[in-house]
Amino acid sequence: MSKLIKKLDDMEINNSLFEIAIRKLEVPVVKIFKASGAIKPVTFKQEDQTLDTKDSDAVKRAFYKTCEKTSNKVLRAMGTNNNPAKGMKVAVLFSGGPAAGGHNVICGLKQALGSENTLLGVKAGPKGLLAGNFFEITDSGVERILNTGGFDFLGSDRTKIKTSAQFDQVRTHCKKNNINGLVVIGGDDSNTNAAVLAEFLYDDKIQVIGVPKTIDGDLQVGDLMPVSFGFDTATKIYSELVGNILQDTPSSRKYWHFIKLMGRSASHVALEVALQTNPAICLISEEVQEKQMSLAQIVEEISRIVIDRAKNKKINHGVVVIPEGIIEFIPEMRRLIDELNNDMAQYRAQMDGMNLTEKHRFVQDKLSEQNSRLYASLPVYIQDMLMLERDSHGNLQVSQIPTERLLINMVRKRIKELDGSVPFGTNSHFFGYEGRCGAPSLFDAAFTFNLGLTAASLILDRHTGYMAAVSDFDKGGSILAIPLTGLLNIERRQGNDEMVIEKALVTLDSPAFRYFESRRKIWASEDRFTSPGPRQMWGPVSNQIPMTVALNRGYNDLNFNF
Amino acid sequence: MSKLIKKLDDMEINNSLFEIAIRKLEVPVVKIFKASGAIKPVTFKQEDQTLDTKDSDAVKRAFYKTCEKTSNKVLRAMGTNNNPAKGMKVAVLFSGGPAAGGHNVICGLKQALGSENTLLGVKAGPKGLLAGNFFEITDSGVERILNTGGFDFLGSDRTKIKTSAQFDQVRTHCKKNNINGLVVIGGDDSNTNAAVLAEFLYDDKIQVIGVPKTIDGDLQVGDLMPVSFGFDTATKIYSELVGNILQDTPSSRKYWHFIKLMGRSASHVALEVALQTNPAICLISEEVQEKQMSLAQIVEEISRIVIDRAKNKKINHGVVVIPEGIIEFIPEMRRLIDELNNDMAQYRAQMDGMNLTEKHRFVQDKLSEQNSRLYASLPVYIQDMLMLERDSHGNLQVSQIPTERLLINMVRKRIKELDGSVPFGTNSHFFGYEGRCGAPSLFDAAFTFNLGLTAASLILDRHTGYMAAVSDFDKGGSILAIPLTGLLNIERRQGNDEMVIEKALVTLDSPAFRYFESRRKIWASEDRFTSPGPRQMWGPVSNQIPMTVALNRGYNDLNFNF
Repeated sequence: MSKLIKKLDDMEINNSLFEIAIRKLEVPVVKIFKASGAIKPVTFKQEDQTLDTKDSDAVKRAFYKTCEKTSNKVLRAMGTNNNPAKGMKVAVLFSGGPAAGGHNVICGLKQALGSENTLLGVKAGPKGLLAGNFFEITDSGVERILNTGGFDFLGSDRTKIKTSAQFDQVRTHCKKNNINGLVVIGGDDSNTNAAVLAEFLYDDKIQVIGVPKTIDGDLQVGDLMPVSFGFDTATKIYSELVGNILQDTPSSRKYWHFIKLMGRSASHVALEVALQTNPAICLISEEVQEKQMSLAQIVEEISRIVIDRAKNKKINHGVVVIPEGIIEFIPEMRRLIDELNNDMAQYRAQMDGMNLTEKHRFVQDKLSEQNSRLYASLPVYIQDMLMLERDSHGNLQVSQIPTERLLINMVRKRIKELDGSVPFGTNSHFFGYEGRCGAPSLFDAAFTFNLGLTAASLILDRHTGYMAAVSDFDKGGSILAIPLTGLLNIERRQGNDEMVIEKALVTLDSPAFRYFESRRKIWASEDRFTSPGPRQMWGPVSNQIPMTVALNRGYNDLNFNF
Repeated sequence: MSKLIKKLDDMEINNSLFEIAIRKLEVPVVKIFKASGAIKPVTFKQEDQTLDTKDSDAVKRAFYKTCEKTSNKVLRAMGTNNNPAKGMKVAVLFSGGPAAGGHNVICGLKQALGSENTLLGVKAGPKGLLAGNFFEITDSGVERILNTGGFDFLGSDRTKIKTSAQFDQVRTHCKKNNINGLVVIGGDDSNTNAAVLAEFLYDDKIQVIGVPKTIDGDLQVGDLMPVSFGFDTATKIYSELVGNILQDTPSSRKYWHFIKLMGRSASHVALEVALQTNPAICLISEEVQEKQMSLAQIVEEISRIVIDRAKNKKINHGVVVIPEGIIEFIPEMRRLIDELNNDMAQYRAQMDGMNLTEKHRFVQDKLSEQNSRLYASLPVYIQDMLMLERDSHGNLQVSQIPTERLLINMVRKRIKELDGSVPFGTNSHFFGYEGRCGAPSLFDAAFTFNLGLTAASLILDRHTGYMAAVSDFDKGGSILAIPLTGLLNIERRQGNDEMVIEKALVTLDSPAFRYFESRRKIWASEDRFTSPGPRQMWGPVSNQIPMTVALNRGYNDLNFNF
């Protein structure tokens, strides 16, 4: 075998030259964790700051054990814990879609728990927790995953732990395995679940800590927790791609690219990518909703920009960034989808067995006049999508609607009406999965390792019902813990009142949105784009943080410095 | 204005932190260009090696001026040119689709031409050359574009210079502007054009040099020129994305991703990405053709692998990599498309005004029995695509056919027939534009800068009709020049014999394909994938070259070392 072939063979199973090198890359650690050359768990003290929501009184009644213990007060790390708990068994699980840095949370947990406590992994997410699927995480296990992307070390799933039988199952498995601590790595719903589990397992002395994960950026608590992990990496990956495509437009001079970005309901991802790349157009769902814009209005605005660039600057190219969830934020579309969801539930039996054409005719008859008109105005492939199988809650899976292609078709039609001479070559893209499992940016790698250290420290310092947090990225990093019950609101979901963590949407008075608003006209009128390039793990530009975070938190700089 | 907002404003128009930093990054230069601390042009001498093809005699008659001068012999750089030409005016243009590193060719040209010669840029490619659209490239111009992606500094287009009136136009513009040298940066067709221009402008003493560009990797000359520029960056970008998605599969455990990759006819891009990432399946067009595989056979193979993984290893996920051009390499599809192209030309008038359903019925009647049966077996949206407007040569634009979705649908159907219990969740992707205009990898940045130095050196050393080349990437780099006429073959194109550079396809006896072949069975049976991560410009893994190049050229290592 040649020397090279041997090398290539050895690279299989996550041993690319990059992966080998990043495993050896030292992760930046917030100073408070450092004690005479070693990394140690810390202790916490209650801050004066209390978190509450409009429903805090009801929450305090439902979560009286944890609320009494935490008083909904924020915790702040004080210094090395010289007397940490020993002999503890802590289990960690992923919940929901992957996000970059998940593996480093585990590495941080393992580091802070040290050799006198045991770290277990739960295989395959909440489903694995219900099945009691634990295994011990070894030193060589964490060496292998340091700084790597994906959730594959444990696996994940989207099972929701809801019924009391399920909660009992969790208790049984935890007690059987002598588990003292449970770390839930997940998004808003998973952290809501962590709050419920903390209360449920309170008397069993099983501590539960949440770790904020989501590429969507919709789990954040102001200055206390400016962002969840995974957002930075996903937006850096999408920003590189959007930047590359922007760079292509004046090179080939003939295409408008419509690019949809993953990110669920909120437009944080789209806004961050727009700030990173300065495209001609970026739609923000929250703005569409607040301004009650119709689909026709959105199409009109895009069409006008395409025509103006062509006429005024002879620029026949550009990029339109579209948030994944926009369709639901267009009020008329929301109303149409809601009525369709109802009709399809109501007439399920009758519609069964119809072909698509029959279905279209049938529902158009049932819809209110306004919705029927809107439905009729949509291209057939979108009507087809609106007839798709509903999810288990009777809702349309909106992410499957190819908004990017819908907008292209409608804009093309409108441009022809307004000015047939304007060329309009197009391409559409959807960037999603490629942003969830990439190797973490240096920021996400550091953020998550420190979140792991924080979560373990909270358990060893005997806390429960908190979410680990790192803040003040520009000032060396502050280590905090956020009382989960302080984030709970009552929301109406599927006909029931539920206490949940509210998704953070883009607000139109946030500095990040306001800055975007102040620049977008000039980005629309001429090419002012920027290519942020691939994320770098070494060298002079490796420590960037998201621009939306820096703007919203009033930083002077774009770098983290721990 | 806050300090941060000022920073963000300043980043517009290609001033991201990354772009600012890479403009300052020193480009590795092959040693022969270095003379007492400075970078200088080199002289060349003829090697013994003569290039020929099956049609060399005919080529020598058609290109007798350049052939007599070059004897179709390879040139090799000898050392510093201490007496380079002075007062020369050299024009450079991009031709065809963008590829990473184009800007650095210009930077290299400018560097080697020095202050005693003038470098002009041709705006907007061959079209700009026909229009005499020149401008002078300044030192600050090249400082601005060093190491950046895109072709936007000059722009590009796909105009073919073919008629004698067009050649006369080029001559007129060049003479009017006192141009002594012309550098054509392009793919196989553009370098063919460079050969023709070199012959045509020979007596005008206007020297013409080609520079090998294409992300497709189909322009290569064995050890003399192992790869064209842009291939490394594009495949690194695609490999990161495919690696990220592979990393997602065992994390979320429910999807098969079908990923089509740009690369035109040849499968070099797909093969390189497969070697970098080790997916379950990668189709190679050239193999499909050589083995005369039918669409049904391809579907059968994929379906069997999906089922085997599910049954034997409980793995319900994976990645299938698909080269863009595969559809034309499936012999039966090729025959169908050819017959359709003919029919649609023949019955153009009759089919005009028909709707799609009528067209389908009409052509199905006209097709031969075998083709008609194949046509009928295809999903309607593929039939629709096959009815698309033909290009100016009457050919279907095959790249527009969503092969990835076609295969998903056919595999789904086949799996249901074979074993209804096997889950088959899917996603499809097409990666193309995002790979053409990214910032060049360190390899492409260095390769192209050295190609620019080489092209300028050839002109200053009074050569014409050559393609600049860099070789021996693992041994410090050899600077060569390849006689363009030594690459010309006679091909039948649109009914005419034309002398063209043959596209290099993947050969099944190449070390790269053979290595892939030796590993793919195990990649199919279990997860052995690798995530190569984002390309790095700094740090320990920045100097990687393509694996296919290293394998095919018999290197011991994966790094370039100049």
